[in-house]
Amino acid sequence: MSTHLLLINPNTSPEVTADVAESARRVVSPGTVVTAVNPEHGPAVIDGAYDKALATYGLVEEMQRAEREEDYDAYVIACFGDPGLDAAKELTDKPVVGIAEAAIMVSAFLGARFSIVSTLPRAQERLRRLAELNGAGARLASVRTTDLGVLAFHEDPEGTLDVLEAAGAEAIREDGAEVLVLGCAGMTGLAGRLSERLGVPVVDPVEAASRVAESLVALRYSTSKANTYQAPTEKVYR
Amino acid sequence: MSTHLLLINPNTSPEVTADVAESARRVVSPGTVVTAVNPEHGPAVIDGAYDKALATYGLVEEMQRAEREEDYDAYVIACFGDPGLDAAKELTDKPVVGIAEAAIMVSAFLGARFSIVSTLPRAQERLRRLAELNGAGARLASVRTTDLGVLAFHEDPEGTLDVLEAAGAEAIREDGAEVLVLGCAGMTGLAGRLSERLGVPVVDPVEAASRVAESLVALRYSTSKANTYQAPTEKVYR
Amino acid sequence: MSTHLLLINPNTSPEVTADVAESARRVVSPGTVVTAVNPEHGPAVIDGAYDKALATYGLVEEMQRAEREEDYDAYVIACFGDPGLDAAKELTDKPVVGIAEAAIMVSAFLGARFSIVSTLPRAQERLRRLAELNGAGARLASVRTTDLGVLAFHEDPEGTLDVLEAAGAEAIREDGAEVLVLGCAGMTGLAGRLSERLGVPVVDPVEAASRVAESLVALRYSTSKANTYQAPTEKVYR
Amino acid sequence: MSTHLLLINPNTSPEVTADVAESARRVVSPGTVVTAVNPEHGPAVIDGAYDKALATYGLVEEMQRAEREEDYDAYVIACFGDPGLDAAKELTDKPVVGIAEAAIMVSAFLGARFSIVSTLPRAQERLRRLAELNGAGARLASVRTTDLGVLAFHEDPEGTLDVLEAAGAEAIREDGAEVLVLGCAGMTGLAGRLSERLGVPVVDPVEAASRVAESLVALRYSTSKANTYQAPTEKVYR
Amino acid sequence: MSTHLLLINPNTSPEVTADVAESARRVVSPGTVVTAVNPEHGPAVIDGAYDKALATYGLVEEMQRAEREEDYDAYVIACFGDPGLDAAKELTDKPVVGIAEAAIMVSAFLGARFSIVSTLPRAQERLRRLAELNGAGARLASVRTTDLGVLAFHEDPEGTLDVLEAAGAEAIREDGAEVLVLGCAGMTGLAGRLSERLGVPVVDPVEAASRVAESLVALRYSTSKANTYQAPTEKVYR
Amino acid sequence: MSTHLLLINPNTSPEVTADVAESARRVVSPGTVVTAVNPEHGPAVIDGAYDKALATYGLVEEMQRAEREEDYDAYVIACFGDPGLDAAKELTDKPVVGIAEAAIMVSAFLGARFSIVSTLPRAQERLRRLAELNGAGARLASVRTTDLGVLAFHEDPEGTLDVLEAAGAEAIREDGAEVLVLGCAGMTGLAGRLSERLGVPVVDPVEAASRVAESLVALRYSTSKANTYQAPTEKVYR
Repeated sequence: MSTHLLLINPNTSPEVTADVAESARRVVSPGTVVTAVNPEHGPAVIDGAYDKALATYGLVEEMQRAEREEDYDAYVIACFGDPGLDAAKELTDKPVVGIAEAAIMVSAFLGARFSIVSTLPRAQERLRRLAELNGAGARLASVRTTDLGVLAFHEDPEGTLDVLEAAGAEAIREDGAEVLVLGCAGMTGLAGRLSERLGVPVVDPVEAASRVAESLVALRYSTSKANTYQAPTEKVYR
Repeated sequence: MSTHLLLINPNTSPEVTADVAESARRVVSPGTVVTAVNPEHGPAVIDGAYDKALATYGLVEEMQRAEREEDYDAYVIACFGDPGLDAAKELTDKPVVGIAEAAIMVSAFLGARFSIVSTLPRAQERLRRLAELNGAGARLASVRTTDLGVLAFHEDPEGTLDVLEAAGAEAIREDGAEVLVLGCAGMTGLAGRLSERLGVPVVDPVEAASRVAESLVALRYSTSKANTYQAPTEKVYR
Repeated sequence: MSTHLLLINPNTSPEVTADVAESARRVVSPGTVVTAVNPEHGPAVIDGAYDKALATYGLVEEMQRAEREEDYDAYVIACFGDPGLDAAKELTDKPVVGIAEAAIMVSAFLGARFSIVSTLPRAQERLRRLAELNGAGARLASVRTTDLGVLAFHEDPEGTLDVLEAAGAEAIREDGAEVLVLGCAGMTGLAGRLSERLGVPVVDPVEAASRVAESLVALRYSTSKANTYQAPTEKVYR
Repeated sequence: MSTHLLLINPNTSPEVTADVAESARRVVSPGTVVTAVNPEHGPAVIDGAYDKALATYGLVEEMQRAEREEDYDAYVIACFGDPGLDAAKELTDKPVVGIAEAAIMVSAFLGARFSIVSTLPRAQERLRRLAELNGAGARLASVRTTDLGVLAFHEDPEGTLDVLEAAGAEAIREDGAEVLVLGCAGMTGLAGRLSERLGVPVVDPVEAASRVAESLVALRYSTSKANTYQAPTEKVYR
Repeated sequence: MSTHLLLINPNTSPEVTADVAESARRVVSPGTVVTAVNPEHGPAVIDGAYDKALATYGLVEEMQRAEREEDYDAYVIACFGDPGLDAAKELTDKPVVGIAEAAIMVSAFLGARFSIVSTLPRAQERLRRLAELNGAGARLASVRTTDLGVLAFHEDPEGTLDVLEAAGAEAIREDGAEVLVLGCAGMTGLAGRLSERLGVPVVDPVEAASRVAESLVALRYSTSKANTYQAPTEKVYR
Repeated sequence: MSTHLLLINPNTSPEVTADVAESARRVVSPGTVVTAVNPEHGPAVIDGAYDKALATYGLVEEMQRAEREEDYDAYVIACFGDPGLDAAKELTDKPVVGIAEAAIMVSAFLGARFSIVSTLPRAQERLRRLAELNGAGARLASVRTTDLGVLAFHEDPEGTLDVLEAAGAEAIREDGAEVLVLGCAGMTGLAGRLSERLGVPVVDPVEAASRVAESLVALRYSTSKANTYQAPTEKVYR
């Protein structure tokens, strides 16, 4: 019996949705089917808290539609910032995996310290807090940001690979990073080549999360309904 | 020249909006004008992450409308969970104050350890994280929850005062709380009487935040645009 | 091309070795082959630091033999205490996964707080430190110990299931656990039935680690040789 | 009914006492009266633990005299180091506010990370601990010290403004500070101009604390006598 | 060449001064000479922050007199709260040891978790912070307080031994303490008998600190003057 | 009655064993006798986790032989990494002191921040974790590594003193270290001269631990058998 994953890209750029689907399909087991969607409305890219707020709204709508109309085995939230992750866990008892939490966890198996390589400088503090929230504050060597936007990776993979290589090399040399984590869903697909250039493991968060989600299904684990992630209580929605 | 505060109640219950406005007016200086609004759409109460996601959407819309059409001096987000606080700070350079962050900060001046008394048990872990996020993990004696919903306080103030008194007394006796923080905007207006009954300071988060917001204006402080809370970058919103 | 995992049970009880192999085979993908071994010399069970020291010696010998003579794709250290994990990572560039680190990580996807249910009371402080070391200190609701030894689970599964149920129920009710982690390799195989009885996800560390190890291979990640886990330097061994 | 604040400058430099009074009066509400005093005996400036010990003695004497002879509504301890803050809270049930705790708290509303700009290098570790003690360790970008003494600010405001600007600019550019906190009561009055030069909010601790103290009175909060800050027990004082 | 230690009891009770001298002499090496003093003025016992402030003043005077007039090799501050420890370190380059820091450090060698057994409940939060400040937050099992004052131990050793035994037994059974630390200088001399009754090591802070101070002299270590503990800068003292 | 200490050097280099014995004898009291041993088998030096695993095996054998055949009063584990410390504490109720834990603790009495100066860069992360595990994370200014192996110090003391001086000077100037800790047993004997050159206290871990062990005996403290360090349970060792 095949496993069916739904990747929800919370931004509204279909090219990113296509990219994350391709990445997921590259790493899952033969029997696993991957579907990827994005909300109709919301920001084309998510690079701040305002965008995250809007995108979360679209994401929960997609979650609700999926729960109502389909029968997915697990969900992946495909934005490095894990927007709406807690809300999504309330809406289902299937496993839900954020790509940031997955990538940060996976990095722990590969080396003693890691750096996140991401987009704009304004994300630095948020990514530090995200690492802290996921219990990785002591392992975080640094957050290295570039000046590239989310879509740059899709539009110019070669150029951005060079930029990522430069940022990653600094993280290794100056900050003591032993593993790199790509801090943006839009960077998906570049980890293998970046790893070859830099000589350290590079975690692609979309790939890592897809494989984690598939594994949670295989392990027959569900989202606990014991307390924090109970279904929303009955109330009026206006 | 008078100071004008906007309180945004992110839930859609006008009675809560009225209550928080009344509380704010009770504590601000004579020259300060208080307006309170709530979104038209969204949950009537917010007691989980799904509700918070929906409410945040309504909240940022209210923030944008206010920034576009009015000239407020500061904003207060009137839900103990500070939904959309980071997003709101991106949308303005005026001070923005969450009632949870304000209440948690204010409690530090009054005693060495505090407890949050709140609504449903499912909120426990989230409130602990909120305290931790606001740097108060070491001061937090406990989170004590009741089985009352957000609107119970409005509907039956006397009965809920008794429930809060019981929970607060346990926090003081068993957890070592020296100060209590009311962990729900809906509880506003009860702090004075609860404090009299229990003999310790009880922080009303709506009152505390309103007074903090007014003070930030008087001190001429603004939201820093240096990095994390920069205005959203230009992008397509579909 | 199939993936080949080696599970090393660091204790010298062949029945535990057989149990962990069976668990791993139950959860891996069809193409994955599982081999399980244990050292010839060392303690029959590991329930303290002295035993861990002896078992680590046997474990690194098994690792070295495997690296020299075989071509495994990844290694799993099948003792909840992760003995020799750092040493093993120095000896290979293949992924190495400890069952405790894997179970603790996996629990993060399933609920907000978890408890470890384990063997003797003397392990309490060590398991707390292990959770802390793996970045899960803030998520750890409690360590609940029973008075059962490591082999009890193999000898009397029904009786020990009752004991685990009692300990787990206390963790849920009194400590706020939303997920349980079985804190001993010897408990493997009981998670499914325990989860049914208690109504929360129960993580079997052997199953979780096996699936994680397989996934790291599928993701083409290796152990970083950048710094901490470099191969041992040249030196005299007497 | 007017609010009456007492600012206690724990050093014995009347020019600093005059400066802090002027700052407080600049920011409080029209109805609030500010009195400022300093001990007769003790160090002219406080730049180490020995001075702090002596100044604390003078400070508690001033607190006791004020409690005995006057009827202040709240107290502000006007030295960035909060000497005697715990002792003062034992001596009254009126609110007592340290200028460091107030400034550190207020900075949280304005940006994600802050730096303290202070006097001599020897204060670095103490200010780091002070931030940590006030729950702001994770938000602290850096402590930047100059080589200027406490009285330099009073004697040469223009020259010291240049020094502070240089230190602040480094904190913003190299350490990621989004908000600055002036780490010395003697620097009071310079925040507005420094903020204009640097483009980020600059918190004047005397102003912030005065406004916080006034607000605590308006909110009718008192110092909790539940445990830690009980009045001193009866005993012999020789 | 003999080593000469000065114990400064910061309270003004000569019977406590005599007791701490006796304890120190019981544990130091044959060649070590112990002198004990107390300030002439100040509180007879120290059980709060106000008393600590007054006692610190007396303590620094004693330190200054000792540095000026005598040639001690090291100093011990004999009050569990380490009043004036930082100030004292500024006043000398000889080693200075607080009895709380010494006892907390020494407890680390003896067991994995410790509890402090102390005097009044109001000290609980302060002792927790003291453990945290000394890096022992993770090892601290609990602070157990009795209702006995500082001088009770001197006046009725048998009765208080029973009270301490009861509190210690609870710490062991309910909090998981493996080592106890006596949290008051006045309790000195009771550790041996308490340890026999309870079956775990009990650290006498006066004994531990005296032996640590003597060892620092033997090791030829001094107080670093590199930064934090530099001598006070030149200034006017009024 | 004389005190008898056993120093166990876990590596198999007799010249290091001789060096640590000499250091211990230099600092203990006249009546204290020092014996030093090393395992027959194992790595000549320990500079990684694999070596540590092998050395721990040899160390516990030496501990068992000593407990069975001799009557030592306390044990010192003479490798900066404290291999087998927990195992050793299970095997005896005499005090057991690791040289890293002792040096880190002792450094707290001497200055506010310390740096560890050690051997190869690969040790950096492990030494940071060791400091954290010993409660010194907040005091750790930095880990400074050189490119010298463990035996370099024995073979060329003058040359390595220069290298240590350079690393130490950087730690003081750039990282704010006020105290240095020598992070390798092989460096023993150099602290005094290094301290003279650099002007800050330099802690020799072998000397510090030997003196601490002797003091624990004088204080009549034992290793707690209450929980974590109980003797190994009965079981089969194959």
